[in-house]
Parts: sequence; C-alpha cells; structure tokens
Amino acid sequence: MNDLLFTPGPVAVPQPVLDELAKPIIHHRTKAFQAIFADLNRQLQQLFGTTGPVLSIAGSGTTSYEAAQLCLATPGSTVLSIAGGKFGERWQDIYDVYAPHLNLTNIKINHDWGTPAPLDEIKAALDEHDNVSAIAVVHSETSTATATDIQAIAELTRNHPTALLIVDGITSVGAFPCPMDDWGIDCLVTGSQKAMMLPPGLGYVGLGPRALARLDAIDHDLPAYNLDLRKWVKAHAKDDVPFTPPVSLIRAQHVALKLILEGEGQLAGQHQRTQSLAAATRAALQAADLKLISSSPSDSVTGAYYPDGITDAARASIRDAFGAHLAGGQDGRGAKWKGQIFRISHMGDVDPPKTRTALDAILQTFKSPQHDTALAAFDNGFSEPA
Amino acid sequence: MNDLLFTPGPVAVPQPVLDELAKPIIHHRTKAFQAIFADLNRQLQQLFGTTGPVLSIAGSGTTSYEAAQLCLATPGSTVLSIAGGKFGERWQDIYDVYAPHLNLTNIKINHDWGTPAPLDEIKAALDEHDNVSAIAVVHSETSTATATDIQAIAELTRNHPTALLIVDGITSVGAFPCPMDDWGIDCLVTGSQKAMMLPPGLGYVGLGPRALARLDAIDHDLPAYNLDLRKWVKAHAKDDVPFTPPVSLIRAQHVALKLILEGEGQLAGQHQRTQSLAAATRAALQAADLKLISSSPSDSVTGAYYPDGITDAARASIRDAFGAHLAGGQDGRGAKWKGQIFRISHMGDVDPPKTRTALDAILQTFKSPQHDTALAAFDNGFSEPA
Repeated sequence: MNDLLFTPGPVAVPQPVLDELAKPIIHHRTKAFQAIFADLNRQLQQLFGTTGPVLSIAGSGTTSYEAAQLCLATPGSTVLSIAGGKFGERWQDIYDVYAPHLNLTNIKINHDWGTPAPLDEIKAALDEHDNVSAIAVVHSETSTATATDIQAIAELTRNHPTALLIVDGITSVGAFPCPMDDWGIDCLVTGSQKAMMLPPGLGYVGLGPRALARLDAIDHDLPAYNLDLRKWVKAHAKDDVPFTPPVSLIRAQHVALKLILEGEGQLAGQHQRTQSLAAATRAALQAADLKLISSSPSDSVTGAYYPDGITDAARASIRDAFGAHLAGGQDGRGAKWKGQIFRISHMGDVDPPKTRTALDAILQTFKSPQHDTALAAFDNGFSEPA
Repeated sequence: MNDLLFTPGPVAVPQPVLDELAKPIIHHRTKAFQAIFADLNRQLQQLFGTTGPVLSIAGSGTTSYEAAQLCLATPGSTVLSIAGGKFGERWQDIYDVYAPHLNLTNIKINHDWGTPAPLDEIKAALDEHDNVSAIAVVHSETSTATATDIQAIAELTRNHPTALLIVDGITSVGAFPCPMDDWGIDCLVTGSQKAMMLPPGLGYVGLGPRALARLDAIDHDLPAYNLDLRKWVKAHAKDDVPFTPPVSLIRAQHVALKLILEGEGQLAGQHQRTQSLAAATRAALQAADLKLISSSPSDSVTGAYYPDGITDAARASIRDAFGAHLAGGQDGRGAKWKGQIFRISHMGDVDPPKTRTALDAILQTFKSPQHDTALAAFDNGFSEPA
C-alpha cells in the first residue's frame, strides 16, 4: 500500500496527472509540445495573477529562487533577506554566496520561528537604506507553517526607489491568494511538488515589469549560464525554453493546472477548499489541546508541537499503522524543531475524508482524551459537511 | 498516433519506464526511496565505470556540465575548451561566463564540425600551459554525430600536473564505452533523456579521485549555491541529495538502468546493439550515396547531408507521412547546419525494425534510386538478421 502523503512537498499527485507522465515522450521542438507549453504559460499567468512571463525552469524550487536572487541583485547594492524558518535562512545563505561576487551587503532580518516577517523592521531597513536592490521574503514558511502578509510588504517596497520584492511562494501559489500584479510583487517563485500538484523537478519564476526592466538593464558579468534569466525570458517570448525542458513534467503540469483552474469554483474554489481544510485541521488540533507552532498559520500546512513525551517515533508509528505520512520538524539557525513538532499538508491530492483519517491516526497515537471532540471540531469546521 | 522518436534527445522511453513514472509519489525522506536511490547510485557507478560518486542533479545535461566546469576550475588558472559543434561551443561559452569571476584564461580550441577533437592541438596546449586546471571536451558531439577519442585525451591529461579532464558524455554514456576509471577521466557528465532512456529532467556527474580532491581543496568563494558540487558529494556519501529530488524520474531511472544493466548481454550487450545499429544505418545511407556529416561517426547518432535540393521540408514530410521524427541540423559559430542535414538517433527505445522503417521513409521521401540496395545494406549490416 502506498502512504497517503501529508508532507508539505512532495505531495500526493492526482491520478490524471500521474497518467499523463506515462504517455510516450514527445519532442519539445514540435507544434504539439509548443501548443501545450503556450497554454501552460497562459495557465501560469492566471495562477500567478500576472500579465508578465512565468518561466518554467528544470530543477527544484531552490534553483528557481536562486536564479531570481542572483539575476535581480544590483552589484554594489544592499539586499534584505528575511528569515523566520529554514527556507528564509536558505535565501539568506544564497545572498551570502553571491555577496563577494556582486559586492552585495546582505542585511538579514531574523524573526522568531512561527511568527510572520516583521513589517516594522522591514520598513525601518527600507527607510534606512536607499540602495536596496532586492528583498527576499517567504510567503508561506513551510518549516514553521507560517504565513506572512506579503501585500503589506509589497506596499512598503513600492515606496522604495529601487527595491524589488522577490517572494518565495513555494507553498502559497495555488494554495491561497498571492496575486502578483494586484499586490505589486516583482518576482514570485514556486516549485512543482507543492500546491502545483506535480512531482518535484520544476520551478517557476514570475516576473513583473520592474523585474523585467532590471534584467534588461544588466550590464555586469552575471555568474550564471543556465540560471541567467535573460535567456529564459527571451525564449519565453516565443513560448520556448533555452534548454531541453522536462517534457513529461511540463505536460503533466498542464493537466494539473487544468484540474485547478477549471475545477469546481476554479482557482478561487481551490483556495477556498485549502483554506477550509486548514481551518478545520487547526480547530481539531486545538480541540485536542495541541499547541500550534505558528502565531500566523499558513493555510497550506499546519504544524503542532508533539504532546509531552512524544517524538518522531510517534510519527513513524502513524505511518506504519495508518499509512499517513506526516512531516516532522526541521533544524535551522533560528530553532531546532527536529523531534519537536509534526506538520500536515493541505496541498496536493488531499481532501476532508483523507485529512480526517490522518487526524484520527494522530489522535489515536497520541492517546488523546479529546479524540472524539477533536474530530467533531474538524467536521464542524466546514461550512459544507466533510 | 505518437511519433517514433529518432531525435538524439529526448528519445523514446520504454513502456516499463513510463509506467514507473505513473506510480504514486513517495517521499524522498523514506527508507523506500532511499533504498531505490542507493541502488541507483550503484547502477550509475557500474554504468560510468567508476568507484567514485555519480551525482543525480535535477535539471538539464547543461546544468550538470556547468556545475562541473564551475566547481572544478581553479581561480587564476587556464582552462581549455574544445569545440567542433554546438555543444562544445556551449562549454566554451560557460567558461567565458565564469572567466571574470574566477580570473580564468579560457583557451578555445576549435576544430571543423564533423571532425574529432584534434589531439595534437590539445597536446600542444597542455605542453605550453602548466597552469591548466581543467579541459572540457565532448565525447559524442550530438550536433555533428561525431565521436572523439577520449581515451587518448585522458592519457595526455594524465601527463599534465593539474589538468582535470571533464568529459561531456551526454550522448555516449550508456550508448558506447566510456569507462571513467579505466581511462582516467576525472569528471563524466550525462543527461537523462539520451541513452539513459528517460524523459529529460536529470543530469549526472561522475567524479574521480582527482576531481574529489579538487573540490575538497576549494578555499575560494564559489559563485554557486544549488550547483555547488560539495553539497551534492556530502549528501551522496549518505545516499542522499541536498535538495528535494525529482522522485518520479529517479525511480524511473532505476527501472531504465535495470533494463540496460540486466538486459541481454548486460551493458556490453547494450553497447553492441547500439554499435551494430549505427553501423548498419551508416551502411544504408552510404549505399544510398548520402554523404555522412562526420569523418569520425558516433555510434549514438548518425547524420547525413540532405541530397541536393532537399531541405527540412522533406524531414517534416517524413514525420507527417511515416511518423518517424528525425532531427535536423543546428547552427553554431563553427558551421550553419540548419536545413543542411538530418540526424537519426540510436538511443532509447529503438531497434532494427523501427530504424529500418525510418530509413525506408527517408529513402522513399528522397526518391532514392538505391532504395532497395540501401535497405539490403542495412539488413546485411547486422551479424544477426535484423
């Protein structure tokens, strides 16, 4: 039996998407592939809420975010990198890697794990430094199941003469709203194995007009070949890619986005279902007296501390006994959460009955005295019955 | 109907490999995935002929080759880049990109398209420069269907105090012999969508002891995060990867390599079949008075000039009428072969009957007076009847 995946990436992939992966390979320089890719590009624009290009880049979400950080940083400038979890810390590390090559000053704003990015500190840093070329911030910090108010940060950024806002939307895009153009996000990145409902292997980079202008104006030696976004933007204008693309994943992404964009309630329906599932899950865990790890919970993943005396072994036994694969905690500079927490994803091929099964397994394993109350809280958490 | 792919990447993928892609996603941090990945690592070592690690990196073959070039270049050194085709030219471009950041002198040796890399010029360059840190060379230049004597270049390199040999094996590994350790290759790179019989999306980097020592000794700021091979080597020692891997492609690669390594005659059998198919194809084209594009033909792909007055339109009509998808020519700095040539791949899910069908289609379309003679030459080109 295959495990039900409740990990926040990779996620369970719907069967029609898996089936597409098994189709014979088509060549990428054919009208058949180009028609699919052109349509995928339109789907991605709809998903990202932008009229700008959304690039599809082979690799992990990290590859794509690195490309954005690297290509949008102005040499000699200041960059702001905001971290309250493992992924924000990764983007800080990436600026550190390129700082000596691009003469960057990397100002790191660190906030407590489980809290959203601090608007006041970001505003102060933007006010203090007029040479900020980019700010890297996480919309949904997967390691802490925490959402940050990107719209507010975008407003701050718009008051700065040069700062481009680069948003890690890896566990937000497709799960809850992050409209690039409406909010004024300059660059939005996600990965395939999250709310995009695909296996890992593709990343996406959406670029707004200011980001495109920044790329156009590059007159320095960029230390990148494959990740030089100018190549990708140029090819994208012809619905093409500069290097052989993962044709199977591209075709499957086209099918997965059809499920999202043409499913019940379309994109708003998908957001509503994710939000509803997250809210009901939080209600259940809280009814069971489990403490959430976040003061600003993300709707794509929910995290809670283990009850006293229980560690990752409990999570393993849930997997073995119930086939529900939950995620554990991760260690970073700001916190050590391995063995301390569990996380349950609301992305991919999950639904209320499956999530209820996972919660039932958790509550049984933790021998929760509130087992029945918690499941009732889950059931009542939906406007429509689960 | 799906086209029969005779393009030198992506290639047709065998059905059992496609079927594996359609299986439910498993998480990469599980014993089930780690067992597959560990076994894949052993398969890759067998395929590469090395006791060193062979890294599996999400992206295109270009991504992996770029990582090797970038990470193995010593700052302030000279690098040699050899090109007689589009891909060799790409590796020259990549060194140009990093030259200002690593203070590299990029010595480019260009040879005529369709000829192998010139040993005498390479020897002279290695003799002249004692500070060469790496030499980039293509084993099978896909754009010109040309093989180069890598064993001889490896011998030259071994007489140099510091030069590491980085081989583009993108259309050789799995198709014909390129034993890393026996020949003394320091770094061997390939991509998934060629003789590895997978869709595009993965690249592979094999590292010998000198390359590993070079990585260990890095004490400069490397302008790379995702492509910093030190991360990948460290994770590989635990049969792990530093970033979420394309789990579906990894599992399918495991199945594809089983087909190759455990098929009839094992790896040697696969090489023999590819060689035999290539030899018979060349015999057929020559019997039809078509001129081969290479003086040193590769066994993974065969190329010939179009007969007078025929261009890419003929290739398109072959595809439309016969469902056989051949490749055309590519343009580069050294030659402009678009519209001049066609190429037929011997990699992936092809066999003598399928290739015979493609040749039949070509000969019919070109109205070859030697149609029957050429097909007889193909049939006679096998020790066993096709």
